[in-house]
Order: sequence, then structure tokens, then C-alpha cells
Amino acid sequence: MSSSLGKLFMVTSFGESHGRCVGVVIDGCPAGLPLAETDIQKEVDRRRPAAAGISTPRQEEDKVEILSGVFNGRTTGAPICLLVWNKDVDSSAYDEMRWLPRPGHADFTAFVKYGGFNDYRGGGRFSGRVTVGWVMAGAAARKLLSTINVEVLAHTVAIGSVSAEAKAIDEVRQNVDRNPLRCADLKAAEEMVRVIGKARGEGDSVGGTIEGLALNVPIGLGEPVFATLEGELARALFAIPAVKGVEFGAGSDVTKMRGSENNDPFATRDGKIVTLTNNAGGILGGISNGMPIVVRVAVKPTPSISREQPTVNMQTMTEATLSVKGRHDACIVPRAAVVVEAMMAVTLCDFALRAGLIPGVIK
Amino acid sequence: MSSSLGKLFMVTSFGESHGRCVGVVIDGCPAGLPLAETDIQKEVDRRRPAAAGISTPRQEEDKVEILSGVFNGRTTGAPICLLVWNKDVDSSAYDEMRWLPRPGHADFTAFVKYGGFNDYRGGGRFSGRVTVGWVMAGAAARKLLSTINVEVLAHTVAIGSVSAEAKAIDEVRQNVDRNPLRCADLKAAEEMVRVIGKARGEGDSVGGTIEGLALNVPIGLGEPVFATLEGELARALFAIPAVKGVEFGAGSDVTKMRGSENNDPFATRDGKIVTLTNNAGGILGGISNGMPIVVRVAVKPTPSISREQPTVNMQTMTEATLSVKGRHDACIVPRAAVVVEAMMAVTLCDFALRAGLIPGVIK
Amino acid sequence: MSSSLGKLFMVTSFGESHGRCVGVVIDGCPAGLPLAETDIQKEVDRRRPAAAGISTPRQEEDKVEILSGVFNGRTTGAPICLLVWNKDVDSSAYDEMRWLPRPGHADFTAFVKYGGFNDYRGGGRFSGRVTVGWVMAGAAARKLLSTINVEVLAHTVAIGSVSAEAKAIDEVRQNVDRNPLRCADLKAAEEMVRVIGKARGEGDSVGGTIEGLALNVPIGLGEPVFATLEGELARALFAIPAVKGVEFGAGSDVTKMRGSENNDPFATRDGKIVTLTNNAGGILGGISNGMPIVVRVAVKPTPSISREQPTVNMQTMTEATLSVKGRHDACIVPRAAVVVEAMMAVTLCDFALRAGLIPGVIK
Amino acid sequence: MSSSLGKLFMVTSFGESHGRCVGVVIDGCPAGLPLAETDIQKEVDRRRPAAAGISTPRQEEDKVEILSGVFNGRTTGAPICLLVWNKDVDSSAYDEMRWLPRPGHADFTAFVKYGGFNDYRGGGRFSGRVTVGWVMAGAAARKLLSTINVEVLAHTVAIGSVSAEAKAIDEVRQNVDRNPLRCADLKAAEEMVRVIGKARGEGDSVGGTIEGLALNVPIGLGEPVFATLEGELARALFAIPAVKGVEFGAGSDVTKMRGSENNDPFATRDGKIVTLTNNAGGILGGISNGMPIVVRVAVKPTPSISREQPTVNMQTMTEATLSVKGRHDACIVPRAAVVVEAMMAVTLCDFALRAGLIPGVIK
Repeated sequence: MSSSLGKLFMVTSFGESHGRCVGVVIDGCPAGLPLAETDIQKEVDRRRPAAAGISTPRQEEDKVEILSGVFNGRTTGAPICLLVWNKDVDSSAYDEMRWLPRPGHADFTAFVKYGGFNDYRGGGRFSGRVTVGWVMAGAAARKLLSTINVEVLAHTVAIGSVSAEAKAIDEVRQNVDRNPLRCADLKAAEEMVRVIGKARGEGDSVGGTIEGLALNVPIGLGEPVFATLEGELARALFAIPAVKGVEFGAGSDVTKMRGSENNDPFATRDGKIVTLTNNAGGILGGISNGMPIVVRVAVKPTPSISREQPTVNMQTMTEATLSVKGRHDACIVPRAAVVVEAMMAVTLCDFALRAGLIPGVIK
Repeated sequence: MSSSLGKLFMVTSFGESHGRCVGVVIDGCPAGLPLAETDIQKEVDRRRPAAAGISTPRQEEDKVEILSGVFNGRTTGAPICLLVWNKDVDSSAYDEMRWLPRPGHADFTAFVKYGGFNDYRGGGRFSGRVTVGWVMAGAAARKLLSTINVEVLAHTVAIGSVSAEAKAIDEVRQNVDRNPLRCADLKAAEEMVRVIGKARGEGDSVGGTIEGLALNVPIGLGEPVFATLEGELARALFAIPAVKGVEFGAGSDVTKMRGSENNDPFATRDGKIVTLTNNAGGILGGISNGMPIVVRVAVKPTPSISREQPTVNMQTMTEATLSVKGRHDACIVPRAAVVVEAMMAVTLCDFALRAGLIPGVIK
Repeated sequence: MSSSLGKLFMVTSFGESHGRCVGVVIDGCPAGLPLAETDIQKEVDRRRPAAAGISTPRQEEDKVEILSGVFNGRTTGAPICLLVWNKDVDSSAYDEMRWLPRPGHADFTAFVKYGGFNDYRGGGRFSGRVTVGWVMAGAAARKLLSTINVEVLAHTVAIGSVSAEAKAIDEVRQNVDRNPLRCADLKAAEEMVRVIGKARGEGDSVGGTIEGLALNVPIGLGEPVFATLEGELARALFAIPAVKGVEFGAGSDVTKMRGSENNDPFATRDGKIVTLTNNAGGILGGISNGMPIVVRVAVKPTPSISREQPTVNMQTMTEATLSVKGRHDACIVPRAAVVVEAMMAVTLCDFALRAGLIPGVIK
Repeated sequence: MSSSLGKLFMVTSFGESHGRCVGVVIDGCPAGLPLAETDIQKEVDRRRPAAAGISTPRQEEDKVEILSGVFNGRTTGAPICLLVWNKDVDSSAYDEMRWLPRPGHADFTAFVKYGGFNDYRGGGRFSGRVTVGWVMAGAAARKLLSTINVEVLAHTVAIGSVSAEAKAIDEVRQNVDRNPLRCADLKAAEEMVRVIGKARGEGDSVGGTIEGLALNVPIGLGEPVFATLEGELARALFAIPAVKGVEFGAGSDVTKMRGSENNDPFATRDGKIVTLTNNAGGILGGISNGMPIVVRVAVKPTPSISREQPTVNMQTMTEATLSVKGRHDACIVPRAAVVVEAMMAVTLCDFALRAGLIPGVIK
């Protein structure tokens, strides 16, 4: 298990889907940052299941508790432990599935790697539920980034074959928390609801694409050659269950472009050097160039589906079938967008600290 | 600078394009592995510029030297320093470009991050040339992986708008070293040569896609939640200059699939559990599942083009134009494929050591 | 803050003296290890304040809770979060001392480093209380080490000017938990009680020396050149508040020995190579040699004393005097011995995992 | 092998006693630092064998080469590879000793750990010769520290039973490079020469004690709880072959002191808070307090002695005797002092960077 992320802003994750709690320890947060449970609660609430028909009926209160590292409303420089207790746990559905690995899930690999000792209930350590901890860490990271005016934002740009139209950043910012799809294109969002509803009705699920943005990022974040901004962001984003692809700027479209098209020309604006296009997604040589960081994340359809699927009984080694009961989302994308923001924020914080752009004490 | 990669098999990179040498230190390689300069030379030679018209005319002898860690033909357990000297260095073209950052390159971000003290000649630390060191490390990693029968293989699957047809693994293995494009579809390869030649003729460049494969990977490599196999491979692959996207298995296609299509059904074959499809690219929950690891890497068109491009003089802060002279590849994809293999091998080695699948002494 | 220790068996500490709790996350513990709260409680209880007159009157129940990583009584391979709640907290004494740094404590350096935002109550993050978390981690580490028969043991060998006579290992093992001084020489222990009592009576405190032993350690733990067994043990031991010296085997006596005296001659016993003496303390070239690991730790007198001491008011920058009220130990040595065991166990576990001597799954 | 030290100023060591070279890679050195081969040569020369009768007759030219990371006389921010070639290598003496581990050396533990594949010639990776690399890294670190006026200094305070008298810092600074013993007490130094000569005459060796000092260290270096200044310095110092004890300030004397004696009282001087004594060795709570850092290092007598010693033939498993021929020092202490300085400098640099006290670009 490698449950820690970051070098100077280090996040350590713990907890399981059906265990006592889900939590996180943040080590390296500068002292003096105002941080309250309500700050973190707000982010955790954004990750909660949305309207019926899209998300899981599991409804956790998810009340955030700060266990350490904050005193008189400010961070102390000591490790910050954040935790939510698991309450609405129903493990009954999982007993019968103990020996039947769910296709698309980690049940099989976890069983082999941990010799059958893994907590299989609700996916245990591999459940999307553990990302509550990361969102809590992301909330602290975002507050820290806000001291240097960096903003992180993620929104749904595609669900199945429905793609959102590109919107201006202000519209994205306004719309994203206003609809359960976290989609800036409200018309597309309605169509996405239908697509998800249809899949759910057929005992199935759908995937989609999230775009993550980081604005006002100073020049110089990222460290060649093995800690590039792309590489570290990708590592953090691939931690999110169901992510299968990560691309920056023009992404895979670059493979079809000429150099003359793809290169972003330099120009001056207000005495500063900028690029006229942003095919690089704000990153050159693994280092932020001052333009918006743009990343796109491919999310697979939720593997938990009620349709019958072929599997193997790991105890008897005989082929079998399985219909995933439990409670689950027909589409995880909108909720994953909140986690994308968190992982981006945590990674950028670490780089900002490494680059000395955030001081050790916030005043 | 974060020039080290890996936890137990740690690779530290050093050297610049126009400095004295390019090298690497491997720390954590088990003792007893037979390792000769010829083993490593073979891999470095595969990375060298190919036929005229595709690659740079810079022709380095690139003679591999083992400086430490090998005694009587076997690794000793001590750090292995590997090095090639830079000889065919021509920095003349770069003097006039000192203040003119090349679009698509790291010149601008490096200048800002390092306060103008960066070695700008030939891209310095950001040049593709530094990947010679990684290929040397990859050569050692591949020998180590071969002790547990793991094979790593990368091939070109698209250049510009030309896509290769899917080929069986044996055909890939056979064809890939036989044509300068490292493409298993020999017919497509011919077309790719034409596409590259056309771009070069127009003072331009093209990008493409590389597929990396790892075969016979044991179940259990990868560590949730923040050191997933996807995440660590992606981090290593994004270190390669020009990589802008990384995806696994069905990749971004998953966004359009239903769960019932995307989930790989489990079955038994020869008493072992396998999946009938491999949309997951051999990875479930961040852990290898015994199926082939499949990764696709999007490579942007070489930013060095002889066409005139807009830029800014960083000294005078006035807008200017630039035509990259120097020597460079019109398409970096086939050479990058060798680096993809190296980065995959290094990452898998590290995980195999973490999982205890390679012993501390090879006998 | 660098609150994590270890590479494969990673321990992350959190909590403060007067905060809500003290805890620890263990990441990398192999799956399958039987682990119950009672196992850990036993070690935590050994660390609790001893008989009146020696230790602090603060009496915490210190009930251990396992929050994650254990399922059906065995470790799952997931991170293990262990926690005790702080209950008997009395911060009243600290308010008046807020601006008066206690000599010998971290109050001054913490104030400067964290810009005054540190939790100063009871020493906050720098209090010996945080070692409860480390003892919990040590309990898990000791269980893990016991699967390869490694035993860790620490005992008091000197308090002030009273030194214990050397005792055979069996006698050490028997006596150490039987007297509040954790001293194998019961006669010396009585004298130590008197020395401590006298100091306390005079509003003062005393220091002492702890010897740590690790038995049945396999050959090969420790990694040259920068992760030697001595170096990593020392780093872990210097984390314990009040430790000012660490030495191995003959320790500082080696400075007065000839090579011919100090070198431990090799011989064979039962077909195995051993050394006839153990001046090296079981470590050659930073690697365990199969003999007992012997380390001695110098512990300073508790800086909290009720005698008046000169200090400076950090707010007014005027000189002042201070008499530490609060509740504290007149001698921390016996309790620190339990923490020495924990830190040794944690460090040895990490090395045993790195060396592949403990498997990823315990069966 | 864990051959890297440091988090932001990371030093990776490579090379063996009788291999091709000894070297180091420094990663994370800020850009813009003036650094020439002569700067580093000066430090390496200080480490070279001293007058006949004290040190080994092996005389390496040890000409320093900068292989990367420096451009136009200044560091670029890229990794700095530094190297000296081994030239005066005579391995003949070691062939006959291949199966006979030298008492007090790592021959036995290296043989077992690396399955007999270790380079045994001259101690290979475990030889004091590898510290040439560390001294090169230390030279860069010292230059970097000098930009914030931090000075590091180590001197011999005891050889065998001869102890130097305490001298004022100016006298230490003046005398230390003037006599082959690196002892500030010139009279004691003469006696030390005699003691070493006598031991050598009897085919034996002697140990001693080094005191390391760091002056003008800003308040705030060191990170609780597991990266204390003491812990990290100790880890670095225990890497030096032959070091068996490390203590800070009053060191093991604290065990016999009362709290009222040991606590350093705070006072104000020139508007700054200082301590009136320095029993803490400049460190409180693992963090520098602005007073001089004082560390004492116990060095064992060189294990290589020409006297006959009992050992075991590892091939035949029969007892045997051995007389170490080769070339070696009768007392390693004065040369080790230079390495103590290097390790202190490297560690302090890392902390100064972590604390943001040295910027990413030196102007």
C-alpha cells in the first residue's frame, strides 16, 4: 500500500467503504491558514450523491471532523487529521459476493495481492468512498491555493456520446454547481440525465469525460525530469477509481496536428509573455507557463451494474454469474469531478510549496 | 529538479544535450544480474536516429560506459552509474536563440524557473537527448524483468492521420525492429514515411501514437491508492518530452461505453482466472490482473520546425519571429517508442521489487 | 513537518498533547497479521505513568481504537489508523506561559518556526504525549517482527549517577516489566527511585540512559550507504523528545580502544559464522551481522521543573522568570524505554520488509 | 542499497574503492550558484591522506570533474554530477582475502547480503574512499550555505586517550587546517601523533572523537517529529564508515545532570532571544534555536590492522587467521573530520531549502 501523496504537502489516506471511517492526514500544511470544519464540509457536500436516478441511494451524513493540526481556527503546522465516520453501512449484499469477483472491480486483484485478507465489503479500500478523504484534503489545499489566487475547477464535458459545448470560464464557474451533472452546458446536461436514466433503466451504467482547470497558476510549477506537472497530476488523477485516461491541453488531438499548428506562439500582453493558443494545456517542459492548466480525464462506466455478468468463483474455481446488488451510481462522472478538483489542488499545493511560492507561515 | 524515479529500483538522471555527457545512476538493482556494456549498447542503438528524412542528422556514437556497480560481469548490489559522452555537439545555432524561446519548447519556462541560468543550448536539460540515460536504465530493468519472464514492447500505432492496423503480438514483435517507424503494420509504415517526408519538406513536423505492452506481468503489481500501476506508469511516461496523453486499455473509448460492454468478464483458462476481454489494459484497482498491460501514449509533433514562428525576445520583451535551425527530428515518435519501453520497464521493475517478486540476489 | 517514518512500513504520526487525540497511520503492514486492540493496548499500558513520585499525575485512560486496516481480526494490507482520545486535559496552566518559553523545551523554536500559530498547550505537537501513537505503531511492528522471531527489548541502565549492573538477557527480560524503573538490576532500581524522589523534592528532574536490544535479527538488514541500520535507528530514536545521544555496541568507548581490541573476531558456532565479542553492536558496514543489536540512548533530565528559571517574554522581549507548573515526570527515562522499543521495532520492520524477509501476506 | 540522502537537496552516491571512479549526483541545487572545479578540489584535497605515519600510502590524484549541471561557471538547476577517477588501484592484496572477512569490516555482512556478488576489492562500496563523493557534495553544499552565512567546521577533539583542550572558535578555525590531526589544541595534536605512531608501530590502530560545529544557523531548521535536526544529522553522520556514536550539545553528560543544570536559560542579547548556555547543542524540539549546532562523533579505530586476527573462511567454513595487508590509515579520525563537515553541510542545506531560507535561484 502506498497511501501517501506529495513531498512537502503530503496527504495520507486511510479508511474503507464499510469500515469505521474514512480519513486523511495532511502533513506539511503551512501554519496560520484559517481552516474550519465548515470549509471542508462544503467540499464534502459537493461530492455527495446527487438527484435520484443518477447516484447511489447510500446517504451518508459525512460530517467532517478535524482531529488535529488546527488551533484557534488556524492551522498550526502540525499534521491535520480529518475524518468522517461511516454510518449508513449495509454489508449484507456483499457476503454472497465474497468469492465472486465483480468484473471491472478490484475484487480479484485485491484478493490475490492480499491473500484473501482484504476487506471485500463494498469494495473496501478500493471503493470510491475513500475519495471523501481526498476531497477533505483538497478542501485544505484549495484554501491554501487561494492565498496565491490559484483557482481549481472541474466540470463534466461528456457523458456517453453526449458532449457539452465549450463554454467561457465564467459560465463554467456559474453553472457547474447548479446542476447535478456538473456540466456547464445546461442543455447538454439535460440530455446527459436522459442517457444516464436510460442506462440505469437497463441495469447498466455510462462513463464520461471531466475537464479540470487550474487558473492563475504562477509560472514555474513542476520539476523536470521525473516530477513534471503532467506526470504528477496524472499520478494523482489515476488514483481516482474508474479513471483510464489523462491528457493535457490538445491531448490526443496533438497526434494529428502539425508542429506549426500545435506550437503555441509567444506574444506579449500587458508586459507579460503569454501564448496565443493553449494547446500545451499550460505546461511546457513539465513546468507551468502561466496559461490555464487544462487536463481531461476519461472515466469508465461504473462497473457495478445489476445486469448479469460472467465471473468465476474464486473458492471453487468454477465459472459463475453475478448481478451486482448493493447500492451504486449509474454514472460516477459528476461526483468524480469534485475529486478531480481535489487531486489537482493537492498536487498544485505541493508544487507551489516546493517552488517556494507559498511561505511556511501564512499571515 | 526531481531527477529520481522509483522507490526500490531508483533511477537518477543527469546530463544535458550540449554538456559533457548524459548518464544515469540506478540504485537498488539486485546483485548477481549479468550485465554488460553490450547489453545496454543494444538498447541505446535502437534509440539512435533512423533513416535520413525522418530523424536528426546529429549522429552521436553514444558508446555506453558502465562506471560502477558491476564486477566480474554481474551487478554487485551497489549503484550502477551508466554514461555516454556527448561528442557531436554543435551549439552555434543556439546562441542567437538564447533570448528567443522556441514555441512548444521549455525554453521559456526554464528561463523563468531558473532565473536565466539554465543551459539553453539544444534545450539543455529538457532535450530528448537526456532520454539516452533512461534507455540505459531501461536496458538494465529489462534484463531484470526477463528473470521473471516479463517482456516490454512498444510500437508506433499512428503517425498524423495514418493509423496502423492491429497486429498479433508475434507480428508486432517481429516487425517492430525491422522498420524505421517501429510500426508493426509494414504497409502503414510506408505511408507514415511519406507523411513525415511531406511535413519535413514543408518545414514542419508530425506527431503520433505509441502503444506500450507488457506481457506475462504477474498479478499483484501496483499499490493502491496513490501508487497505482496506471498512475506510476503515467508519471514515468509523461517525463518523455512531447507526451501529452496517456491512457490504458480501451482508454478514452471507455467514456462512450456502457458498463456491460466495458467490464471484462472473468473466466477460467488452464486452471487460472483470466478476463475474456482486456478493456482494463491489464489493470484493475491499480493492480495488474495478469492480462497484458496496454498503454497508449500521445506524442505531439516535434516543436522544432524550420518554419517561421512568432515568439518574444525575453531580454527586450519585444515580439519577434524565429525559425528553428539546429538539427532535429521531423517526427520523434519511433525513437520515443524505445523510451516508452524503457520507462515501462523501469516502473514495472520497481513494482516487482516492492511486491517481492524479484529477489534481492539473482542466482 | 515531516511526520512520516519508513519506506515500506511507513508510520505517520498526528495529534497533540491537548488536542482531541493522538494517533498514527501505519501504511505497508502486510495482510494477514492477527492484530487486536488488546495487543496494542498492552504496549500502550506499559508506557503509562508509573508509581507516584516518578511520573506525571496526568492519568489518561488511553483506550486504543483501531479505525481502519483490520478486518475479522487480521490486517488487510490497507493503512491501519490507530487512535487514543485525549480526555484528562488541563490547559489552564499553559495560558500564563504562552509568551514565556520554557527552557529546554521546544516552545521557543516552535513559536518562531510556526509564526506563533503552534498549539502551545502542554507542548502541543512536541509533547512526549505524541509518542503514544508511536507505541501503538510499535505494537504492530513487534507483532510483525515476532513472525520472524525478532525480539525487541529496552531497559534503563542508568539514572543520574546510578548505573545498573549488566545482567544476562533472561534477567533483563524478566525484571524489566516488574519494576517502575524498567531496570534489570533491582537493587540499582531502588537507588534510582531515591535519586528521582530527591530531585522531585527539590523541584528538579534527572536524566538517564536506556539500552535497546534486538535479538535474533537476521543478517542483512540495513542498506549502505545512506540508510545504514545505525543511521535509521538513530533517526528514529532522536525523534523521542529528550534524547541527545545515540551509540551502538561499545559506543563512545571505541574512541579509546585499539583496533585489535575493538574488532570482533569471527568464529564458527553450530555451523554459523558469529563474532566472539560484540563491540560492533550487531552492525558491520551498516548491516546487521546476526549478533544482538545493541544501542544506548542518552536521555536528558525532564526540562519541566518547578524551580524558577530565567526566560524571556516573547511578546514584550523582556527577561522574566518561570516556574513550570503543569503536570510532568521528574524522570522520563523508564517511560521513554517503551518508546525506544517501539522506534526500534518500527525501524527493523521497515528493513525486514525492504530485505524481503517478511512476506507481503502473513499466513 | 539506499544511496540517496536529502529531500530537496538530494545527494546520490556511486562508485567503489577499486572500481573506475567515485562520484555523486546532486539534485535540487538552486540555479545561479557560482561553482567551479577548483571550489570542490579544495575540499577534496583537505580529505587526502596526511603525513606519513598517520595515513594510507595510497595517493590518488583525485582530480575533480564536473560532468553536468554547471554552465558558464554557475549551477543551472539541473543535477550536478561530480566525479574523480580511481587510478592508484592495487587490488592484489585482496584476492587472497576474498573468502576471509576482515574483523570490524563489512566484508562478512556484504557477502551475505549480496550473495557473494559484492565487489570485495578494498572494501568495495563500503570503503572510506566513497566518501570522496560526499566531500564533493559537501563542497557544493558549503558554498550554498555561505550565501546565508552558515559556516560548518569539524575538528578532532580526542585520539585514543588524548583529549584536546577546548579552544575558542577563532582558534579552532585557524588551527584546524594547519596540522595533520585537524586538532585545534596544537600541543595535544603532537601527543596524538605519537599515540598514532605507536599504534602503527605495533601493527594496530586508534580511534577518536570529532566535534562538528555549525555557526550562524538560522532559527527554524529541522522538522518534527520524524525529521528532527538531530535525527537527520545523525543519519548522515552514521553513514561515515567507523562512526559508532553521535551526540549533541552536552551529549551523554546530560544523563547525569539535573534539569536545572541542563536547561539553557533564555535571555535577550541585542534584541534577540539567545540561551546563556548551550547544553542543547543549538537544537530544541528537533529545531535549530539560533545557537551553534554542536555534535560529537565517536570514530572507532581503523579495523584494518596488520596484526593477526581470527576469522573464518566463508568458503570452507573453517576458522582461520588474517593479517590485513593492503594500504590503510592507522587513524582515520582527521580525515573523517572533513567528511563530518560535508555531511553536516549537506543536511543543513536540505533543511534550509525545506524551510525556504535559500531561494530557488541565487542572484
